[in-house]
Order: sequence, then structure tokens, then C-alpha cells
Amino acid sequence: MVRKRTNGEATEPLLGDQHRIDLRQRASNYTSTSQLALVGFRVSRIESLDYEMSENELLSQDWRARSARLEIFEYVLLKWTLCFLIGVLSGCVGFLTNLAIENIAGIKFVVTSNMMLVNKYLWAFGVFGVSNLVLTMFAAVITAYIAPVAAGSGIPEVKAYLNGIDAPEIFSFRTLIVKIVGCIAAVSSSLHVGKAGPMLHTTSCIASLLGQGGSHKYHLTCRWLQYFKNDRDRRDLVTCGAGAGIAAAFRAPIGGVLFVLESLSSWWRSTLLWRTFFTTAVVAVVLRALIDFCKSGKCGLFGKGGLIMFDVTADNVSYNLADLPAVIILGVVGGVLGSLYNCLISKVLRVYTLINEKGRRYKLLLAAIVSICTSCCLFGLPWLASCRPCPGGIFEACPSIGRSGNFKKFQCAPDHYNDLASLFFNTNDDAIRNLYSGGTDKAFSKYSILVFFVASYFLGIFSYGIVVPCGLFVPVILTGATYGRLTGMLMGSHSTLDHGLFAVLGSASFLGGSMRITVSVCVILLELTNNLLLLPLVMLVVLISKSVADCFNSNIYDILVKLKGFPFLYGYAEPYMSQLIVSDVVTGPLQMFNSVEKVGKVVHILKTTGHNGFPVIDEPPFSDSPILRGLVLRSHLLVLLKKRCFLHHSSAAPIDAFEQFSANDFAKHGVKGDAIEDIIFATEELEMFIDLRPFTNTSPFTVVETMSLAKAHILFREVGTKTSPSHSQIPFRGTCSGNFDEARLHARACAWAVPTAHKRKQKATAVKESKCDQNVQVESIC
Amino acid sequence: MVRKRTNGEATEPLLGDQHRIDLRQRASNYTSTSQLALVGFRVSRIESLDYEMSENELLSQDWRARSARLEIFEYVLLKWTLCFLIGVLSGCVGFLTNLAIENIAGIKFVVTSNMMLVNKYLWAFGVFGVSNLVLTMFAAVITAYIAPVAAGSGIPEVKAYLNGIDAPEIFSFRTLIVKIVGCIAAVSSSLHVGKAGPMLHTTSCIASLLGQGGSHKYHLTCRWLQYFKNDRDRRDLVTCGAGAGIAAAFRAPIGGVLFVLESLSSWWRSTLLWRTFFTTAVVAVVLRALIDFCKSGKCGLFGKGGLIMFDVTADNVSYNLADLPAVIILGVVGGVLGSLYNCLISKVLRVYTLINEKGRRYKLLLAAIVSICTSCCLFGLPWLASCRPCPGGIFEACPSIGRSGNFKKFQCAPDHYNDLASLFFNTNDDAIRNLYSGGTDKAFSKYSILVFFVASYFLGIFSYGIVVPCGLFVPVILTGATYGRLTGMLMGSHSTLDHGLFAVLGSASFLGGSMRITVSVCVILLELTNNLLLLPLVMLVVLISKSVADCFNSNIYDILVKLKGFPFLYGYAEPYMSQLIVSDVVTGPLQMFNSVEKVGKVVHILKTTGHNGFPVIDEPPFSDSPILRGLVLRSHLLVLLKKRCFLHHSSAAPIDAFEQFSANDFAKHGVKGDAIEDIIFATEELEMFIDLRPFTNTSPFTVVETMSLAKAHILFREVGTKTSPSHSQIPFRGTCSGNFDEARLHARACAWAVPTAHKRKQKATAVKESKCDQNVQVESIC
Repeated sequence: MVRKRTNGEATEPLLGDQHRIDLRQRASNYTSTSQLALVGFRVSRIESLDYEMSENELLSQDWRARSARLEIFEYVLLKWTLCFLIGVLSGCVGFLTNLAIENIAGIKFVVTSNMMLVNKYLWAFGVFGVSNLVLTMFAAVITAYIAPVAAGSGIPEVKAYLNGIDAPEIFSFRTLIVKIVGCIAAVSSSLHVGKAGPMLHTTSCIASLLGQGGSHKYHLTCRWLQYFKNDRDRRDLVTCGAGAGIAAAFRAPIGGVLFVLESLSSWWRSTLLWRTFFTTAVVAVVLRALIDFCKSGKCGLFGKGGLIMFDVTADNVSYNLADLPAVIILGVVGGVLGSLYNCLISKVLRVYTLINEKGRRYKLLLAAIVSICTSCCLFGLPWLASCRPCPGGIFEACPSIGRSGNFKKFQCAPDHYNDLASLFFNTNDDAIRNLYSGGTDKAFSKYSILVFFVASYFLGIFSYGIVVPCGLFVPVILTGATYGRLTGMLMGSHSTLDHGLFAVLGSASFLGGSMRITVSVCVILLELTNNLLLLPLVMLVVLISKSVADCFNSNIYDILVKLKGFPFLYGYAEPYMSQLIVSDVVTGPLQMFNSVEKVGKVVHILKTTGHNGFPVIDEPPFSDSPILRGLVLRSHLLVLLKKRCFLHHSSAAPIDAFEQFSANDFAKHGVKGDAIEDIIFATEELEMFIDLRPFTNTSPFTVVETMSLAKAHILFREVGTKTSPSHSQIPFRGTCSGNFDEARLHARACAWAVPTAHKRKQKATAVKESKCDQNVQVESIC
Repeated sequence: MVRKRTNGEATEPLLGDQHRIDLRQRASNYTSTSQLALVGFRVSRIESLDYEMSENELLSQDWRARSARLEIFEYVLLKWTLCFLIGVLSGCVGFLTNLAIENIAGIKFVVTSNMMLVNKYLWAFGVFGVSNLVLTMFAAVITAYIAPVAAGSGIPEVKAYLNGIDAPEIFSFRTLIVKIVGCIAAVSSSLHVGKAGPMLHTTSCIASLLGQGGSHKYHLTCRWLQYFKNDRDRRDLVTCGAGAGIAAAFRAPIGGVLFVLESLSSWWRSTLLWRTFFTTAVVAVVLRALIDFCKSGKCGLFGKGGLIMFDVTADNVSYNLADLPAVIILGVVGGVLGSLYNCLISKVLRVYTLINEKGRRYKLLLAAIVSICTSCCLFGLPWLASCRPCPGGIFEACPSIGRSGNFKKFQCAPDHYNDLASLFFNTNDDAIRNLYSGGTDKAFSKYSILVFFVASYFLGIFSYGIVVPCGLFVPVILTGATYGRLTGMLMGSHSTLDHGLFAVLGSASFLGGSMRITVSVCVILLELTNNLLLLPLVMLVVLISKSVADCFNSNIYDILVKLKGFPFLYGYAEPYMSQLIVSDVVTGPLQMFNSVEKVGKVVHILKTTGHNGFPVIDEPPFSDSPILRGLVLRSHLLVLLKKRCFLHHSSAAPIDAFEQFSANDFAKHGVKGDAIEDIIFATEELEMFIDLRPFTNTSPFTVVETMSLAKAHILFREVGTKTSPSHSQIPFRGTCSGNFDEARLHARACAWAVPTAHKRKQKATAVKESKCDQNVQVESIC
């Protein structure tokens, strides 16, 4: 039972072996081994982004050559210009999306309402249902056939991207167009879906495309953009784009910055904060200018509802300690409902995935069924409500006839309105505004609100996951507002708070309970409602709901990221990780190259493994003893092989890398590069040699195999070696240190990778059997 | 001219040698070599905090033993409880400070005004001047004699702490008390200083003291608090405390979180965001409850002015594109004035430091002179203004008599007021409120505002740096508001904006220009003025002023941190750093130990160096070849030496570390530990051996000497190895990798340290002479 260390000295086992095996099992549950993930609705091969500075001789030389003052100035200027453009374009796209939605949905509601005015109820239902179905099917067809990647909210994909996982098409031009058009169609079709998530994905696409100079298919790019042909700069741009998305969706510039900071990005620094803030400020200014333009009435039915902005300052907010119980109840309820919502969504998504896997026709069928059910709910349920007389002394016409208004006449007599229809038979934005409106405590009946709450909760769950671009934010805000108002009604005289405020607090609690965002939800709600005096209450309710919900499960985006199979490194190390060391989770065999290597071996290894990085070893005669020279990347090897700069024998004079290659050859263009299978070699070429020395990154970050998993986790996470531990495709990159001895190759080398489930099992067994000699274990791995 | 690499192969020189030497010179300018810094007003020895997990056998064992579920739960619960307590205490301290200031200053103004009512002008000046002088001297005396560390704003010290620099007394109980009392006295004495900075330092003290269970002198602590006896947890608590400080000063909970995130902390993660937010939420709730309590009139003169909260929602804000030029002008002016302000403050501080160095009496004399000059300004300058008739239809009494009000009668006839006196002869908070107030475009004359602006600008510069606790925030806000309003007046009919809004925008531009904070200044101003519609304008003005000011110098806190001599690692690597490699800046000789080392050698090295960490080398017979075992810390060595667990000869049976020591022996108690000089050894003890193996951190982060400085910088910054590159006291910690070969000791070991100026010069010369053989260079260093 004595665990041997590589240097031969015996120590007591620190953990019972069974315990250690349990922990390894846990580590393997925590990670995934697949190189595939569900991007949007397409199963794609995912790859790791490379945030490490690759310091090989060639690139260092290039960097030194171009670090003249002028070039740095060009780079900085260009980056700010790009941020400005991202802001302007995001603002425009956000505005146009809203304009289109408001007009399409508005016309639909006006036509239907007019039919109902003349008692053509069946016709009205027909027009309503068919137009919804057509819009939904249009969105579903373009998504399914043109860009399946555009399905869903896109936030999990962007989150994965900002954490180091790339997937093809994720930010392509096609995705962009489908996302915008699909989102407009889906939201206009009265599906219970939001537009914030798709907006965020859209603006991230814009950011990424701008960085590479447009669609890569058409090679639209210019000399200046060469600076952005790497993953670090692209990540910065996408971060700005993501912030701009939320800013455009909610007109919440600060909320956008904070949302990205809090829930999306795992890498952040002060300059980026400042740049993202600049972008969202531009968005805010553009939106304001465009909305001012619309005030002159040139934008059709685009009115107040265009961008959510609920002004609840009208009433002076006052609250006191007596309102505390109500707030606490709301928080607890929000936490429970939010975690349940997350749980149900993940269950439904699993079922939907099974259906969707059967083929496109099934996907479309599912979308059609959801659309029809939604139409039935929206049109059918308001009949359950009794008509209420119009309130006196209001600014708005009641009932609203011939326009998209808040007091829906529906089936009621003149001067009466249907309170349930003013929630159901409206765009989600208008419904939210109705619920948030102050001084309207008598406008809704408890019964109507309860019906709407139940419908809204389940429609939200069942609508997410069909093959259209659809977000979660707005449904969550709407559902939260509903039960918030309901709570207010049930509290009755126990609380003096306005029911509109209850609705705002309800939204906060549901956002806290489902998405578990804290600071950003407060800021977004403040920016939405334009009322800062609410702040302490909102903070309290969010704190409680998040704490309660955290007892049950994790936040919705983490659940989705996991469901979709994206590897993800969390910001903190789990406690069990301190009890494992790196060698507990690495696997082998370690594939490495000599600094001058046979072409045949390189080709063979590239073909037989999926690794993206390989250690390079200097051996005699290049050094006195075997020594780790560094790391070479698969993508660089492919460039070398393609150029066929081979040596005839291993001790030939080295090639002049600086003559043969320019740094641009190795730049990452955002286009999928060649695969090893695409390059054909002659037999004599396979016998030649390739000089890896100028292309080897001589200073990779390294860990020793006795480092605890927790500490290695921190290194991986913090230095942006975002090559997730689970990502078996890139096991060695940035993680190898060597101490090779001439006598025995007892490698201190270490890779961080997780084997396939099968192999893992084998290894656990092997450890069990050979636990007395760690040395053997290590040798067999490396 | 060929640069040789350690593995013996020749490459072309990548940089001209002169260029490289220039760059090294630049690197050395960037860093400082001193182990001393000006903490508050005391020159103290600074030390590096240790954020790395020290993974030696003893501590790992301990962690494993205590990572039971219950203990983790205890830890989490306790941390949240501490955050709650920090919030409650910060709220109370913030409230009490304001209460005291408002009452002391209020009584002073009422008494003086009453004397002026009966035309006793000289008496009034006497009382005013003497009371100011007494208050200032009281603050100065307690600061100079009891806790010089409490002088100044404290923000640079907290910033340095959060970036890894510790100094004795920085968060002691004495500092806390002097900071609170001194701040109250200084602000009440009408000095042109703020209370936000001291508040932030105060709450950080509270956080740190709570974490260690009270003052360490009295050993107030309990078993549970053992979890917090390390630098990582203490950093988290201080971060929460700092956020609470800004939240308490401005009643801006979100602004507090963002300020810490944006300008103080260099280390951040989602959990910490959430915890800081919780703390500031508690502060907001406590403040609100206490202010509600005061509404009943039990708090003396504490009124609206207590905590800055300027409600400018009264007027509906409207603005359009025509206002853009005004905003742009404000931004540019703010940028220029802000950078000039920073420059002047640093010049004045240099002069003050020369005076202060001469002794306490000079410090006090300086404080007295500044106080008298300030009193003269405040009392004298209002005589320059002409009296203005009271405006009609206002809520407030005009002129305000017998109470601390905004319309000061001063020397005027009845029904008239002195507009300059209502700015000068008031607390800063009231002056800001007057400037921010809307609908008062006619209340001030251009001339008065100009006089006040000039006075306020220079009083701010000359008041910061005397030996009292004094902040910069409020003077900056006030000065900004002044020139903002002035700009509004000068724009005349070219802009439709209210002059109160111009004042708010002016504050934003000056904050942006001087402190260069962006997102947080927006949020703080929004929370202060309770008006979200201003947001786009505030964002724009901050963006412009920061961009303009960045062309001239860096932000005020960075300037202060540098002036005070704190080493600081910025979040980004300077471009020149990519052109240097680590071995360009490391220095020697490398001091290292064998894994079983002679006591005499350990004692000698500890006595003769200031290093805090030493590499430990396994040599035969403990390993086949020399190999880097890890790193041992000075503090751990001191514990070992004090316990005198020595071996009689190097190959004796190892001691049982787990029997002899507990992890608690090595915990960092926040108390300054023993120095090596305090431990006396017998001669025979010096000949004995000490077994370092169980105490060596076997997995330090490592870099190779060919890594570029930029990349190493990122590692140091990101993994929290916050041992600044400049900090010569801790040159080796976390930075050594070894590949020792039996044949030749060609170390890949590397340290990151900067030699003294003298040594540096020598080295630069050495490189010049021996540049042909880098190998020699490296060997001579290590």
C-alpha cells in the first residue's frame, strides 16, 4: 500500500486507495471526452482556441520586426475603430429587429382584432393561427436547412467560445443572417421566446466577422486586419460584441457590460472592460438617435414597445420594513420556481433532442406542433376571463381598437376589456409593460394572473428547444413579473408596495433563480425600469432567490453548456480537486517528436491522434542529454508539411525558416485549415526529415505531475490556456515539462487529458493493481 | 555578435545589442528595487503576499484531513457571515461618520452665521478659523503620533494590498480608529478633502480585522477563524470591505462593486463578484434603515446632506443632438484639467514629502498652514461676490438663518443671499448639491462660479498630502461640477441642457480625467443623482475625458502607488516586454538549498538575503541526478528553525513532520512573525542538518529563462503569483524550474528580480562584454 514517488522515496498513502479511485471517477464525470458538441442544432466537431502566446523563433522574430511604434498605433486605432463599428452595427441591427417584430406582430394583432370587432371569431383564430404557423415554419425551415447552428439562444455557444471552444460556422455570415431573420420571424409568430439571446449571438457574429473582414468565403479582408488573425484579439472583439447584444436588446449599456463579465467571459481585464463599455455606449447612442427618428411616426407600429423600457418612475416608490416579508417570500418562491424551471427545461430539451435527431422533418413537425399549441393557448385562454370595465382617467384609449394597444377588447362589450387578453394577445414586451405599470392594482384579477402564470411558465419551457433562434430572457422576465404581481395580490394589505413594483421584483427573483446572475440583473432591471430607488429591494430579492436556487441545481446556461457537450472550465476548483494530483488524470501514450524528426513519423502521429500540440525533445547530438525543447502545434506542423521544406538527413544544415516562411503563414485565419488527410506524400518524402526547431514554442506553461489538480486548474483557467482539461483533442498543449535523464526516461512530462470512457476504466483498474509503484504507472503513460 | 543559446546552437541576434540594453534599462525603470514604501505617511518595509497554494506534504496532508463536508460547510457559512458583518459594520461606520461630520460642521456654520447676523464679522472669522485649525490639528496630531499609516486617502494602500503587497499596520486596529476619528475631524474642519477614500480604507480595515478575529495584539480569535489565516481568504474579505466603503460613502452599492473591480483589484472571479455584491447590498439596507430612523429628527443637523444623494429627477431630462458639442467640449476640458490635476498633485506631493521628512513638527506646521489658508479662502473670497435677491417660489428658506442651509446670507441685506458663500461657506456635500440642483440657472453668477472653480481646483491640490486622513473623490466631484456649470453658462443658448445637468456631466468628466474610471463612475453618478436618462451623456463625456487625459499621464491612483513606492503589476504587458526574455531581467546569485541542508547555511542565507523563497534541490543520494524538488518559504524555514527539529547528520532517518508540526504552525496569522535575528543558535546546532523535504512546495509555477518577459508577466499577474517582478525581496518565489544535469549544472533555473541600480549597471556592462556567450551569463547568474 505504499505509493512510490518518482524519486524513489516512500511516503505513506495520503488517501485510501478506494477513496482516490472514487475521486478520479468523479473527476472523469466532471469532464467530458467527446470532441463533438451540439452547436445550435448541429453536432459539430469542436476545437480548442489557442490563447497562449506561441513563442517560437519565427513568430518572435516577426513580432520584434513589427513592434515599431507606427504598427502598434495602427493596431490600437484599428481595434477601437472595430469596436466603434461593432457598436454602430449592433445598434442598427437591434433597432431593425425590434422595428420588424413590432410591425409584423402589430399588423397581425390589428387584423385579428378588427375581425373580432365584427364578431368573426373563427376567422380571427384562423388568421392568427395560420400567420403564426407560417412565421414559425419560415423561421424553422431557414434554421434547419440553411444554418442549424443558429438555432436556440446562442448564449451557450458564445459562452463556450469565450471560454476557449471554437466550432465551425459558429460566427459565420450564414449564421448571422439566419439568426436575425429567424429571430424576427419566431418572435413575431407569438412563440413564447425572447430576442435577447439571439441578439447577443447576432452581435457576436458581427464582431467576429468584422475582425476577419467579412465572410471568409469571399476573402474580404485587408492588410490591416492581419493583426486580428489570432484567437486572443478575436476573443476581445467577441466579448465587445456580446456586451453590445445585451445593450441593444434591453437598451441597458451598463447591464450589457456586466452580463458579459458576470456570466459569459472567463477572461477579463481592465482594458477590455473599458473597450466593452465603449462599444455599449455607442450602441446606446445609436439606439437613442434611431428612436428619436421614429418619434416622428415614420416607423409604422413601432412605438414605446420597441425596446423594452418600462418607466416606473411615475409613482414615487416608498417602502419600509413591513414590506420585507413580501420580498423574502418572493425571493424564496423565485428560487424554487427558477431551479424547477431549469430542471424542466433540461428534461424537455433531452426529449426534444431525441425527436430532433430523427431528421429535419421531425424538427419541423415539432416546431409546427409547438406553434399551433401556442396559438391555441393565446387565443383560447382569454375566453376564460370575465370582462372588466375600462378604468377611468387613463391616457390610453380603452379598449384599444384598430391599433396594437394594451386594453384588448377581445370578446367584450364596448367600454370593457379582457384583462387576460391584454397579457396573452399582445407581444411579450407589451405584456411585460402592462404587468410593470404602476397604479394598476385593480386592472387584473387574481384568477387571470394565475392562468397567465401557469401558461407562461410552461409555454416558456416547451418553446425553448425547437429549431428556431429563440432566447430565454424575455420569457423569464415575463413569467417572473406574473407571479410577482400575483404575490402582490395575495399579500393584500400586508404590503404597501405597488403591484407594478411586485412585478419588477418578481422578474428579478426569477432571473436570479434561473440564470443566477446578480449584479447584472440588478443593473439591467434598473436600466429597464429607470428607477434607482428600487435597488435595495431588487438586490435583496436576487440574493435570496439565487441562494435558494443554488441549493438545487446550477444556472441555466451552465446546464445548457453541459447538455450541449461543450467542455467548460469553471472559475473555481472543486474541493475534491485538491485531493488529486495531475498524474491521476493524465493519460497516454505521450506522443512526442525529436527536434529533427522523420516526416513519416510526424504524418503517422498526426493521422492517428487528435492532439493539437506535441512536445518536442532535443536529443543528442543536439543537446548533451534529452531535454524538453518545447511544444509544436498541429496547425504549424500542417503548414510545414504542406510547404515540404524537408531535410535529406537528420544532421543536414538547418533550413532558413525566415526565408521560407513568414509569420502570416502561421496566422489563424478563422477558416478551417487543411487536414492531414488532404496532403499526399511520396514514399521518399516520408523518409526525409523535418526541422521543428524554429517552429517550436520554447516557453510553454508547464506543470509537474505532482501538482494538485486544483492548482493546475487555476493555471489553466487563469493564464488563458483555456484548453479545457476535458478536451482530449489538445492534451499536451501548454502542459508539458520535461526532465529527461540519459539513463532512464522517467518523464516528469505530463499531459492533462481525459481518456475515453473505456480507457479510463482500464486505467482505474491498472492503478488498483499496480498502485505500489507509481513509477511504472508514469512510464507506461508517457 | 552571435548569441549563443544554452543548448549550444547559434542563431542570429534578434535585436541590436544596444537596443536590447535600452530595453533592459526601460524594464528597470518600470520596476523598483526598494523593499520600502511610503505607507500612509510612514516609510515601512513592505512584503509580498503569498497567493500561491503552497503544496508541501504537510499542508496537503492537512487539507485532505480537513476537507470533510462539515468543514467545508463551516468555512462557507463563516465566510458569508463575515461578509454580512462587514456590511453591517461598514454601514454603521459610514452613517456615524456622516452624522458626526454634519453635526460638527453644521454647528460651526450656524454659530458663525449667527455672529455675522449681528455684524460681528471679525469674531465670526475668529471662531471659524480657530475651530477649523483646532479640528485640523487634532486630526493631524493623532495621525502623526498614533498612526501615520492612516494619513492620506488609503486607496493606494488598499490597491497595493489587493495586488499583493503587504505592509505592517496597514489594517491594524489603531489605523482603523485614527482613520475614522481623523477623517471626521478633517472633513468637519472645512479642509478641501473627501471622505470616500478614508471610508474605503476604514471598511477594508474592518474586513481584515474581522477576518483575524479582532486586533491581533489582544489575540482575539476563535477556532473557526483558522480558515482565514491565509492571504487568499484575507484578500477576498478586503475586496468585500473595499466595495462596502464606496457603497457607504456614496450610497452606491453597485458603484462600489464596480469601483473595486475596475480600479482596485487585479484578481477577480464570479464568486467574489457575488460576495462583494452581497456585502454592498447589506450596506445599502443598513444605511437606508438608519436614515429612516433619522427622519424623525433625532439626528441633530443630519439632514439630506448626510450621505450624498442628489435627486435630479425633479426635472424631466431632455436632450438632443444639438447638445453634443457642449458634451464634447466638457469631455475635452475634463481630460485636460484632470491630467493637469494629477500632474500638479504629484508635484505638490513631492514637495510635501520633502517637508514631511524633516520631522513631525514640520508635518503639523504644514497642516496648520493649509488649514489657515483654507479658512481665509472660505471666509474671504465670498466678499468678492455681490449679493443677489432671493428667488421666489422656492421651498427652502432664503436666506437660511439659524440653521445650516444653502442660501447663505453672509454679509448681504435681508432677502438677499451671497451665491459664492453658498458654495464656500458650506460643507462640500451641500456645495455639490447646490451645483447639481436643477432649475437654478439664474442662482449663480459666472464670476462667482469662476472664482469658486479656481479656488476649489487649487485647494484640492494643496490639501491632499497633509498628515490627515483625506480623500480625493469629493474634491474632484466638486471641482468638476463647478466647471461643468461654468461651461453651461458659457454655452448660453447654444445648449438646452439644465445647468444642474452640466454640473453632473462636469463631475463625470473630471472623474474620468483624473481617476480614469469609466463604468464605475457612470454607475456611481447614476446612483448619486438617481437619474438613468443621463446615462448616454455621462458615458460619452467619460469616454472623451479619459481618452484625452490618457494622452498625458496615467490615473491618479497609479501615480500615487508609484510615488509611494509600491511595486505594482499592471494587467497588460508593455510592448517592449515582448522583446526581452526573462533572463534579461533576472539577477543572481541564486540562493538554493539541498533537500537536507546544514542549519548553518540556512541561517547564513536567511541573514544575508531578503528573499522570501528558495529553490530546494534534490542531489545524490536522494536522487539520481540533481533535480529541482521545489520551493521553500522563508516563513516556513523560520518556523522550522524555531522548533529546532534538527538531524545529526545528513543521512539520518527523516523526522516525522506530521508528529512534530501541525498545519496551524505554518498559518499566516497577520502578525509579523519572528525575524531570523531573533533566533539564537548554539555553535553545534549550526553544524546539524535540517530536513526540508516535508516543507517544500513541490509544485511551484515555473518559467524557463527563454520565455518572453510579456508571457512571464501574464503568468505572474494571472495565477496570483502577485510577487511583483520588481520586488527584490521575493525574487525566486514561484519562478524556478530546474533541469540539472550531472555533468554540467546548466541551470534552466530562473528568477525574476531586479538588482539594485548599481548591480544593474554592472550587468548591463557584463552583457555588453560577454554577449557572445549567453551561456556564461546564465551560469554566472544561477
